Amino acid sequence: MTQIGNLKTAALEKSSHLEYFKIAVSVDCVIFGYEEKELKVLLIKSDLKEFASLYSLLGDLVRPDEDLDEASYRILKERTDLDDVYLQQVHTFGAVKRHPSGRVVSTAYYSLININSHKLKIDNNDLHWHPVQTIGKLAFDHKEILNTCLEHLRGQIEEHPVVHNLLNEKFSLRELQELYEAILATTLDRRNFRKKITIKKWLVDLNEMEDNVSHRPGKLYRFNKKHLK
Amino acid sequence: MTQIGNLKTAALEKSSHLEYFKIAVSVDCVIFGYEEKELKVLLIKSDLKEFASLYSLLGDLVRPDEDLDEASYRILKERTDLDDVYLQQVHTFGAVKRHPSGRVVSTAYYSLININSHKLKIDNNDLHWHPVQTIGKLAFDHKEILNTCLEHLRGQIEEHPVVHNLLNEKFSLRELQELYEAILATTLDRRNFRKKITIKKWLVDLNEMEDNVSHRPGKLYRFNKKHLK
Repeated sequence: MTQIGNLKTAALEKSSHLEYFKIAVSVDCVIFGYEEKELKVLLIKSDLKEFASLYSLLGDLVRPDEDLDEASYRILKERTDLDDVYLQQVHTFGAVKRHPSGRVVSTAYYSLININSHKLKIDNNDLHWHPVQTIGKLAFDHKEILNTCLEHLRGQIEEHPVVHNLLNEKFSLRELQELYEAILATTLDRRNFRKKITIKKWLVDLNEMEDNVSHRPGKLYRFNKKHLK
Repeated sequence: MTQIGNLKTAALEKSSHLEYFKIAVSVDCVIFGYEEKELKVLLIKSDLKEFASLYSLLGDLVRPDEDLDEASYRILKERTDLDDVYLQQVHTFGAVKRHPSGRVVSTAYYSLININSHKLKIDNNDLHWHPVQTIGKLAFDHKEILNTCLEHLRGQIEEHPVVHNLLNEKFSLRELQELYEAILATTLDRRNFRKKITIKKWLVDLNEMEDNVSHRPGKLYRFNKKHLK
């Protein structure tokens, strides 16, 4: 361990900061789904005594030899058996006292999936979908993490057609509005909604009408593929 | 350390994962500025032998007793003496081998400031502003962190008037376009740019003209305060 001029080696840097290398990093996955006109999120019963009977997000510690992004997919796969889901990193939570086991900094990832096309392994700690509107207290700071990811999702749907895989390929503006209302947890004015969506130029008018619906049939649309990644 | 039914205590959880609690967390600050029609970023010479003569972002390890967000402001203050800058968290980088001292997961924060109104303490490891377009290799994975924050900034300016504090209160569309061109590193078509900016309704026409300019005087605008946070 030598110091060269003003420079120090990485080994010296570490030896003078040993008490800094005592943090664990975790990943928490916020998996949103849409079903029966409700926005839902996947939760699991916490297995810590300190949070007995509380639900938590799907999370785990990052292994010493595992990249952060890699950990997010491994955790989702282990806990739910889902492996065809794209996870996006949203935010890292690093309050000193957020975890009762010691210093654990957690990175949140989110996804938005079609509940009916993703089969869960549900033998695991009461894993299931919870309507976002009904969720009370969660383990750790997971309510804050959930709220941060929900705000992120609400921002995303204003700017990008990220909801495209939650609808059938052909859908009516009524169905699209119901989906936006579920995510935004509000009712939207029909005319304003249609105007705002039209300005974005995300939709293609299929010149077809709904059938077998109990209300007045609406026109059908699909998303313009050039806006979908 | 007891296990209750399926539940374990936080202490037991930690004792069975000791090898996970060996990570350090760092913060890297990507401070963008605008000057002389160029987008710049604050860099400092690395003090590690492994990266001798390379520049790095402004960063440091998070202290054991320090929240993550708190660390970002402390580091910026220590390295630059800046304490009136709003930092926004962008992304966390967690590749296993990214730091030669051991496992260090780093959270990047970014800001966009007016260079002329922020005085730096420049006696510190050759700290200064570098035009983003001229930056080659950086220490660690800092080029990737810089590029991620640059992409984030480019997304932000499309959606929000985040550039407002880089211009005088009154500015011409030519000045605004020059700023966008510097951030996007491209030239923009004058008419398209004006059309896109007009649609956003961010600007208020002041019914005044530039004076003392060497080109044809343009109309002056300011940002509509209701769009500024």
